[in-house]
Amino acid sequence: MAAEPSPPLLPHEVVWHDGQVSRAEREQLLGQRALTVWLTGLSAAGKSTLAFALERELHERGRACYVLDGDNVRHGLNSNLGFSPPDRRENIRRIAEVARLMNDAGLMVISAFISPWRADRHAARAIIGAESFLEVHVGTPLAVCEARDPKGMYARARRGELAEFTGVSSPYEAPLAADLTLDLGKLSLPEAVAQLVGRIGRHAAWQE
Amino acid sequence: MAAEPSPPLLPHEVVWHDGQVSRAEREQLLGQRALTVWLTGLSAAGKSTLAFALERELHERGRACYVLDGDNVRHGLNSNLGFSPPDRRENIRRIAEVARLMNDAGLMVISAFISPWRADRHAARAIIGAESFLEVHVGTPLAVCEARDPKGMYARARRGELAEFTGVSSPYEAPLAADLTLDLGKLSLPEAVAQLVGRIGRHAAWQE
Repeated sequence: MAAEPSPPLLPHEVVWHDGQVSRAEREQLLGQRALTVWLTGLSAAGKSTLAFALERELHERGRACYVLDGDNVRHGLNSNLGFSPPDRRENIRRIAEVARLMNDAGLMVISAFISPWRADRHAARAIIGAESFLEVHVGTPLAVCEARDPKGMYARARRGELAEFTGVSSPYEAPLAADLTLDLGKLSLPEAVAQLVGRIGRHAAWQE
Repeated sequence: MAAEPSPPLLPHEVVWHDGQVSRAEREQLLGQRALTVWLTGLSAAGKSTLAFALERELHERGRACYVLDGDNVRHGLNSNLGFSPPDRRENIRRIAEVARLMNDAGLMVISAFISPWRADRHAARAIIGAESFLEVHVGTPLAVCEARDPKGMYARARRGELAEFTGVSSPYEAPLAADLTLDLGKLSLPEAVAQLVGRIGRHAAWQE
């Protein structure tokens, strides 16, 4: 047991919930402040690339962190959701709830989803808590994203084959007051990561 | 950037996903093997009490861990689910998916849910991965749970007021081959925690 062992409890005393480990204790154990870096932006803006580069950087600095993105969420937790407006809303809601749990566990979370609607991002901020939430607009312009088009999705959307494709057949509502805006059409990846690390450092006031 | 800085990337190279942090790297950073301790048992069997006592014990040993239970899941991620059979199944599925993500992040997860059906626990094991999954039956007998009845739920179920109450108006399928069985009608809480720590230690082969 712990440093000072508890006395044995009798079975009928088992409704004991004292001594629950707090978020602050978990943050202390990990030597960091938990937060969620919420990346929002168009398809092919570079969100996942930036998320994994930031994760690598934080990991190298000894931070316990985790990326939530389409690959590990859409195929698992949210595999029963599509891309209709209600499903997109539920997708973002569940991601925010998972980020909240992971922050409570002491982790730094980086989420990389288009999350096109202000109302949904506002809801995510409310779930996670404003004090733990950094909204980062990966503001690579539509023309640059469309020129990249790594999966040919913009081309398909322009041909009218994708009914709900953000930026073409479905709106993207850019943040009005993002904590940070990064245009990956102009910034190199290391430059963008450096800006993020600086912003996280100010937010979390960590000591290097 | 990391110990050896990457060269600047040109914007059109931004589809770079190399260097993604692996689960093994996260486990190494945290100095532990991730796993999910899946507690199953009747209402009032002592699952949450045991979960939090185990969490406290692991935390004191410097382990990064987290409890998933009704309080932090039913009111958040799964607040849009009820207690019908399909909703119970979806409840367990989402919990297992979150545990999988948290294990991937390197955390030790303790889940404390009735999870009455073998098929659902089997599905949870498949999602989480058998090598990371410890099924622990909190096998406190029904009579003991019912005598405790901290929230008066068994009394209400006996009066026919709760249509889907496990053990009374809905079945509980006990594990056929649990990794560990703990009867909190007989064991003290420290004894139960000690058994769990021993079992986890064998599973994760950690060095103290």
